[in-house]
Amino acid sequence: MKSFISYPKDSDFSIHNIPFGVALIQDEYVAVCTRIGDKVVDLSYLYNEDYFGDFDQLEYNVFESVVLNEFIELGKPTTNAIRLRIQDLLLEGSDLANDEKTIEEAIYDIDEVEMLLPVHVPNYTDFYSSIEHATNVGKMFRDPDNALLPNWKHLPVGYHGRASSIVVSGTPIHRPKGQMKPADQDQPVFGPCKQLDFELEMAFIVNKMTDLGESVTVEDAEDAIFGMVIFNDWSARDIQSWEYVPLGPFLGKNFGSSISPWVVTLEALEQFRTSSPKQDPEVLDYLKFEGERNFDIQLEVALKPENGEENVICQSNFKYMYWNMAQQLAHHTVNGCNLEVGDMYASGTISGKDPHSFGSMLELTWRGQYPLKLSNGEERKFIQDNDTIIMRAFAEKEDVRVGFGEVSGTILPAK
Amino acid sequence: MKSFISYPKDSDFSIHNIPFGVALIQDEYVAVCTRIGDKVVDLSYLYNEDYFGDFDQLEYNVFESVVLNEFIELGKPTTNAIRLRIQDLLLEGSDLANDEKTIEEAIYDIDEVEMLLPVHVPNYTDFYSSIEHATNVGKMFRDPDNALLPNWKHLPVGYHGRASSIVVSGTPIHRPKGQMKPADQDQPVFGPCKQLDFELEMAFIVNKMTDLGESVTVEDAEDAIFGMVIFNDWSARDIQSWEYVPLGPFLGKNFGSSISPWVVTLEALEQFRTSSPKQDPEVLDYLKFEGERNFDIQLEVALKPENGEENVICQSNFKYMYWNMAQQLAHHTVNGCNLEVGDMYASGTISGKDPHSFGSMLELTWRGQYPLKLSNGEERKFIQDNDTIIMRAFAEKEDVRVGFGEVSGTILPAK
Repeated sequence: MKSFISYPKDSDFSIHNIPFGVALIQDEYVAVCTRIGDKVVDLSYLYNEDYFGDFDQLEYNVFESVVLNEFIELGKPTTNAIRLRIQDLLLEGSDLANDEKTIEEAIYDIDEVEMLLPVHVPNYTDFYSSIEHATNVGKMFRDPDNALLPNWKHLPVGYHGRASSIVVSGTPIHRPKGQMKPADQDQPVFGPCKQLDFELEMAFIVNKMTDLGESVTVEDAEDAIFGMVIFNDWSARDIQSWEYVPLGPFLGKNFGSSISPWVVTLEALEQFRTSSPKQDPEVLDYLKFEGERNFDIQLEVALKPENGEENVICQSNFKYMYWNMAQQLAHHTVNGCNLEVGDMYASGTISGKDPHSFGSMLELTWRGQYPLKLSNGEERKFIQDNDTIIMRAFAEKEDVRVGFGEVSGTILPAK
Repeated sequence: MKSFISYPKDSDFSIHNIPFGVALIQDEYVAVCTRIGDKVVDLSYLYNEDYFGDFDQLEYNVFESVVLNEFIELGKPTTNAIRLRIQDLLLEGSDLANDEKTIEEAIYDIDEVEMLLPVHVPNYTDFYSSIEHATNVGKMFRDPDNALLPNWKHLPVGYHGRASSIVVSGTPIHRPKGQMKPADQDQPVFGPCKQLDFELEMAFIVNKMTDLGESVTVEDAEDAIFGMVIFNDWSARDIQSWEYVPLGPFLGKNFGSSISPWVVTLEALEQFRTSSPKQDPEVLDYLKFEGERNFDIQLEVALKPENGEENVICQSNFKYMYWNMAQQLAHHTVNGCNLEVGDMYASGTISGKDPHSFGSMLELTWRGQYPLKLSNGEERKFIQDNDTIIMRAFAEKEDVRVGFGEVSGTILPAK
């Protein structure tokens, strides 16, 4: 497949990708777009030029929107067909390739747009599905000999997070203030968090609403997943460790979570499926699955200090997940919990076995014991003010590359 | 104050109340309404008849809506003034009292309407702010001699709940299925929950949006609280106890939460303010408060078996709360977590010292050890299929009564 829009071989946004996002174009208007190479294509313009005229399901210009929700809600048969149409239109020799006016009016350089939060997120859940991450945390904070809690291998542990504070890549985050209890003091203190961390995660976005009381099975779960983004679950470790027993993470997390702006569909990731880690002990029937449910997506995290260059501090892979997305969604709804369009479900920190693959500063520095050395000579136990964290993700196989671009966020001083 | 609409002396919906709700009227249309006695007043009709014509802030008919959010978002100066206007209009001798056509067209019997979920809830948080409840749970599940965890008296412990499964009074809830680990078995099992419980709570609703990074102080917090509802936080104890370590309650809670349909404003509750329990040790500065921040609201829970009458099984009071609403909101936002209009913040189970005031079956039966005896001769350790739980709340002082009505929910068998 060759597009009439050229892009470098290592572009995340190849003709095989066709992701969806929402862009503010030339500071003037907002539209649902796709991206190829460094070009952004305004789908609302294509709609108005009748490039989707044969889709009866598109009763109005669903791309003329500030969020993807209405588009996503059309469901896979429609959104998949539209994605394939867009792919066809971007090929050499297509009707679009010969439509100079539309190319002029609908296609922009990436520099001409500002990417917005792609979906309205009604509900957000964060799982804890990497066995390496859960083991590392258990070793550090609980019992090194029994790092995994008794429930961990029986169900995908998760908790509800804060939907309001999910922001798009590029949004700066102020260092949170809060209550912490230093180990050497009797009483808690209040102030700016001192152990600010990232968590390298991926998140999936749901395309359907279900009724309260209804469940989604493992078999049906992927039909309810529109696509994925990179997810940085910023974490204030000192606030978290004082507050989280017994009801879980709260202010240590809800000051901000950052996502990448382009939603990559499950269909674009289809050829990167891979087998899952063996689950032992055997899981209960409602969590059993067949086929390849993990995805081979390469991940990296870079830290860029204020006056320095990027340092790649972690390289991991989404394929390490012990619990897959289908299991997560089946578990989440087995009690009848209802889904809403745009719901976001994050994986939990994605660590691998190798220490360089650990997906948080907490693990990389082993709670500050082994500071990271940066190329500018500085060290980091945790994130400092004006540091920028950049996460990247892509899948690659036999010359086909499908990527997510990046999610980036700079930590500003506490307000 | 005497209304031209008569109601019994013990009505929750006196002329002093003027709550707000959303009603489906005669199965035909939906409108924002208030209630007095057993009459429901369609505020959208009053708007169209120009009864609010002098309010510049009402740029359009904000009462012609399926949720209160747009109205609430107008902010206290406006919503308070409109509430007082409605109160005036309902008095004897008012313009409305003499407007027969509007009385005919805008006022309905409560039987002619179906109450809907009053707000769209973007985010929902559940606190854990009753010291008696936290102590009871700590005694049962952890250490009887150190029932309260170290952080409990230093901060209002809370967690994020699931917004999508908040439903209005009258909505039946299917008994959830899930994973549990019976104490006498090695491995977890899957099936319908066997320890289904209610939690007697109150919840407040926020009227403003804040920016990420912004905090609301204790002093300013009540300006951001539009009003309150009764909140039944249904809980599957056996699912919860297996899943909740270390990330908190999840599927044991998110299968449903029920709220009463009428939002009672803080202003209607003003004369029922009362002093708060002494907080010892002293709290950190950002949690300090002045004045009376608790509210004397009498609470009761009744259990109605399928073939029997109501049994009042708990009588409690909202004034017992150790942490007040202003502290809860200040704590929630101290890290910069942003608010959205319609956000719901529940108190946590409201227990008192007296065993009859315990706000859950878990506490009332002490984890099933002392079953409740019902008037029909049956016993209950937890909630059975087809049981209905009804919670009521009202404040009363010097012949003035302001109440919430009830939140009712029937448990249907597992699907």
